[in-house]
Amino acid sequence: MLEYQEGRTELEALGEFALIERLADEFEKRNESTVKGVGDDCAVLGTGSVKTLVTTQTLAEGIHFDMTYTPLKHLGYKAVAVALSNIAAMNGTPRQITVSIAVSNRYSVEALEELYSGIRLCCERYDVDLVGGDTGSSRSGMVLTVTAIGEVDENKITYRSGAKLHDLICLSGDLGSAYSGLLILEREKVTYQANPNFQPDLDSYDYVLERFLKPEPRLDIVRMLGEAGVVPTSMIDVSDGLASELLHICKESKCGCEVYEEHLPIDYQTTRVCSEMSQNMLPVSNALNGGGDYELLFTIDQKDYDKVKDMQGVHIIGHITEEGAPAVMVTPQNSTITLVAQGFRE
Amino acid sequence: MLEYQEGRTELEALGEFALIERLADEFEKRNESTVKGVGDDCAVLGTGSVKTLVTTQTLAEGIHFDMTYTPLKHLGYKAVAVALSNIAAMNGTPRQITVSIAVSNRYSVEALEELYSGIRLCCERYDVDLVGGDTGSSRSGMVLTVTAIGEVDENKITYRSGAKLHDLICLSGDLGSAYSGLLILEREKVTYQANPNFQPDLDSYDYVLERFLKPEPRLDIVRMLGEAGVVPTSMIDVSDGLASELLHICKESKCGCEVYEEHLPIDYQTTRVCSEMSQNMLPVSNALNGGGDYELLFTIDQKDYDKVKDMQGVHIIGHITEEGAPAVMVTPQNSTITLVAQGFRE
Repeated sequence: MLEYQEGRTELEALGEFALIERLADEFEKRNESTVKGVGDDCAVLGTGSVKTLVTTQTLAEGIHFDMTYTPLKHLGYKAVAVALSNIAAMNGTPRQITVSIAVSNRYSVEALEELYSGIRLCCERYDVDLVGGDTGSSRSGMVLTVTAIGEVDENKITYRSGAKLHDLICLSGDLGSAYSGLLILEREKVTYQANPNFQPDLDSYDYVLERFLKPEPRLDIVRMLGEAGVVPTSMIDVSDGLASELLHICKESKCGCEVYEEHLPIDYQTTRVCSEMSQNMLPVSNALNGGGDYELLFTIDQKDYDKVKDMQGVHIIGHITEEGAPAVMVTPQNSTITLVAQGFRE
Repeated sequence: MLEYQEGRTELEALGEFALIERLADEFEKRNESTVKGVGDDCAVLGTGSVKTLVTTQTLAEGIHFDMTYTPLKHLGYKAVAVALSNIAAMNGTPRQITVSIAVSNRYSVEALEELYSGIRLCCERYDVDLVGGDTGSSRSGMVLTVTAIGEVDENKITYRSGAKLHDLICLSGDLGSAYSGLLILEREKVTYQANPNFQPDLDSYDYVLERFLKPEPRLDIVRMLGEAGVVPTSMIDVSDGLASELLHICKESKCGCEVYEEHLPIDYQTTRVCSEMSQNMLPVSNALNGGGDYELLFTIDQKDYDKVKDMQGVHIIGHITEEGAPAVMVTPQNSTITLVAQGFRE
């Protein structure tokens, strides 16, 4: 009985962020305890000096994960890690999660126990309590929603909107490796489907596979920053590729940015996968547009340079430029490439 | 590659509550701020005297709702109402929600806007802020997860576990009407499918249809109880039918109970629908086992009887009996029927 044919706008026409902004646009804030609603990595709630962070992440089978190569234990771990990464991006400490699962009867109790063993492993590793959720049926496949709750001192919150002119742009870990892992898994899947007797040889891709299947929230970076007394001026986690995240920071902070290609941290396995895949696949494209690395991208005031420059696993990749300037990458040949968001959505 | 055939236990073999308990069983509490985890209507969090309540509810297309007769605006309203009902069941005040939606590309932007107009209506009615969430793709249908966040003074929290011997059992509103609405919609759907020219006549079923399609969280009851200075000794919302909810309270409070059939509030439209459907369909069965009423079931100390007895929309339906006693309904003929949980899961 319900059809919406007239004036129909396809979901793909908008993209996730524009869609959420459009849908959330007409909501007015009604509670004093709502400090920040839609539009950052987490909502910020509470009236005291310690704020509550809340974030929700959904992973859907066939869209965000492919059961042919995703072990359930890894999936459980990743679903939690992805939510905790949003808490890290606000400079916070995660405390609790809820997990909602809709599954078809294709899954057994034992399969869900395997999934939960991964959820538990991630909870234990990051000292987080599972406090609720529900498990219901779905018509097909699995949809997994994790809500993470954390806390942060109000004077340490890192929004996307705080970057200032001349701030240094920093990044943890390396880029493009998770997407390289996905490329390998997709390649082996195609070969396996063509020949079911084929045994995938994944041994030499350990690092990129783990990066894709079992990412870690960079709460270690949050702790290091705290110990060094550094509060980033802005922060975001890299879920959709560096270009997309830089553009978020530039938009929210009303600034431009320059990052240097030669300073982008790219693991040699990422480079190797790219050269195996195609002569035309550049590792820097994976770094800019591949997703799923869950590293932290943040900006610091120049006065904090000495505290950050030797921090393990942190790379300074560029700086913030003035309002109205574009977001660009400078190549080793000193030409500039304007960044556009084309990261994959995860 | 991943199959779990050996030692396979079907999900239906356990039921939702046993399943969640089994899955959450091995998790240890790690944070001081986790006051109550899995096992009540909400998790209770925080270290101060005002506690944070968190609850997550998932609705899946084809399982919890049927798009052939569920207007999207009603669906959005209901998804929020169901989550807020869990906050009400803890005697709390809702403050924020997050909404995660996984949808197939069958849905347009306009369809999601219609859904969000219902979400917004419920938020406005109950003074709740939408603070986050995400919208992603699914392979088929729609899965909608709402997390609600609320607050409650720690000395006013109503767990399922607080009922004591001789406490009075109270219930808001009436029972079985939402399920009667569902029966009507299913009947008209079958007729419509047999003859697409058929125009469903739903006019005379306004009340039961609204009860099913657009339930209200009984936050008005929470407010009335607060104004009267009554803190229930236990409380739960009636999502799965009275029998199931009474058994939850008896289990958690380690007690039995007696409710009186003649005191169960049943609307005349519920009775009418039952007599239309089948001579064998008893309204009391809908009250005990139909779900989706989202009324509040609570127990009070006898000293509060005078404060509650004339409270609008509140019915006293029985009392708590000693540990080890069964949960029973006493019929007008003074025979007792032992209650078993067979409510439908929503």
